[in-house]
Amino acid sequence: MNLLTMVDNSNNNVVLLGSGFSMFGMRARIALAEKGIKYEYKEEDLSNKSSLLLEMNPIQKKIPVLIHNGKPIGESLIILEYIDMVWNNNNNGAAPIMLLPSDPYDKAQARFWADFVDHKVYHASRRIWTSKGDEQELAKKGFIESMKQLEEFLGDKPYFGGENFGFVDVALIPFYCWFYTYEMFGNFKLVTFCPTIISWANRCIKSRESVSMTLADGKEVYESVLDYKKKFLMD
Amino acid sequence: MNLLTMVDNSNNNVVLLGSGFSMFGMRARIALAEKGIKYEYKEEDLSNKSSLLLEMNPIQKKIPVLIHNGKPIGESLIILEYIDMVWNNNNNGAAPIMLLPSDPYDKAQARFWADFVDHKVYHASRRIWTSKGDEQELAKKGFIESMKQLEEFLGDKPYFGGENFGFVDVALIPFYCWFYTYEMFGNFKLVTFCPTIISWANRCIKSRESVSMTLADGKEVYESVLDYKKKFLMD
Repeated sequence: MNLLTMVDNSNNNVVLLGSGFSMFGMRARIALAEKGIKYEYKEEDLSNKSSLLLEMNPIQKKIPVLIHNGKPIGESLIILEYIDMVWNNNNNGAAPIMLLPSDPYDKAQARFWADFVDHKVYHASRRIWTSKGDEQELAKKGFIESMKQLEEFLGDKPYFGGENFGFVDVALIPFYCWFYTYEMFGNFKLVTFCPTIISWANRCIKSRESVSMTLADGKEVYESVLDYKKKFLMD
Repeated sequence: MNLLTMVDNSNNNVVLLGSGFSMFGMRARIALAEKGIKYEYKEEDLSNKSSLLLEMNPIQKKIPVLIHNGKPIGESLIILEYIDMVWNNNNNGAAPIMLLPSDPYDKAQARFWADFVDHKVYHASRRIWTSKGDEQELAKKGFIESMKQLEEFLGDKPYFGGENFGFVDVALIPFYCWFYTYEMFGNFKLVTFCPTIISWANRCIKSRESVSMTLADGKEVYESVLDYKKKFLMD
């Protein structure tokens, strides 16, 4: 059995359930692309969830779900960990692309910051376009503060993973295509506060095909958010 | 270098910052006890945080923080993963007590359910004693529903980890000493809805010294919650 056969065996029957411009779905797509895994992408209509989604993630009924040989895995960061563990060789037999560092302390740090993105960045960013007035101002302030904290952690490294694109990079970069939406609703420019984050995002897009082929256009995300708000009568 | 020397070397300078009846702090204490790690426990007064806490966890300013040879790790589940990775031999040289399974899919499942405890169980349970009226009813319903889902996942296994006490067991068992508080504020008995969870909790207490020596008394937790509510004028 040669390496290619081995890779093919472990690759078979990979399905990803995702939806629209979800940054959590994008994370899984970037990780699968980084590992060179062929998979079937199934777009979910979250206003009319498929029986497959309800069967595969009955607890959360949420995307993304990675289905590997019929077995489902939910929660985007857990999916990234799974992908990193299962596919630790890439297709051409070169050195494996690992998202998480091997050192236990570095691994804990990467997990800490990815968790920070989920808890601080996501919740604040969402409230920028779902709220108004004082609540919106607070959300904007919280979002900018969290991005500044990430910027400080990034420092002068090219990636959050150090010299290499890694776990925290995959966790954060999908938010980039939502920045325009946050800026339009919040009436600010993130580059004014966090120029290094913007440079980092551009670096990811330029250097990683996994990112450039996955990220949506910022204006398309904004248009879809406007449509969503009209549909659900949010003003 | 014999095994004992190796263990001693990796054990030195372990400090845990915890506070009161925090279930998140208890998780770290149970995991350290399971691994037989000697450590210094420092109680934090969260209304007057120590300079050590602020220095070791400047981002969240929260407990628990595990400080291993001067390097801090935050977030209880990340701390458990770190402990499991670093201390994978126990002190007497017997088979290592591992909290997480080694199979990638089983590992993902354990992480999924621990995340479920953090997101569903914790948030619903907290609102049982911090809210009133309809919000409290909704919280109670949500809490019972989440416990039923956990009960279904447990099935007829002795532990969430299967035959062995593991990651999800450590994540959930500290909530046991809060059950009395939820029941008193919510006016219900969890055993009516989830008898298997109560049996599981009693099994953990009886069979794991790590649990029996860490868990607080349910009535003491309740008294402290009443005091806390008086202090912060919550009625």
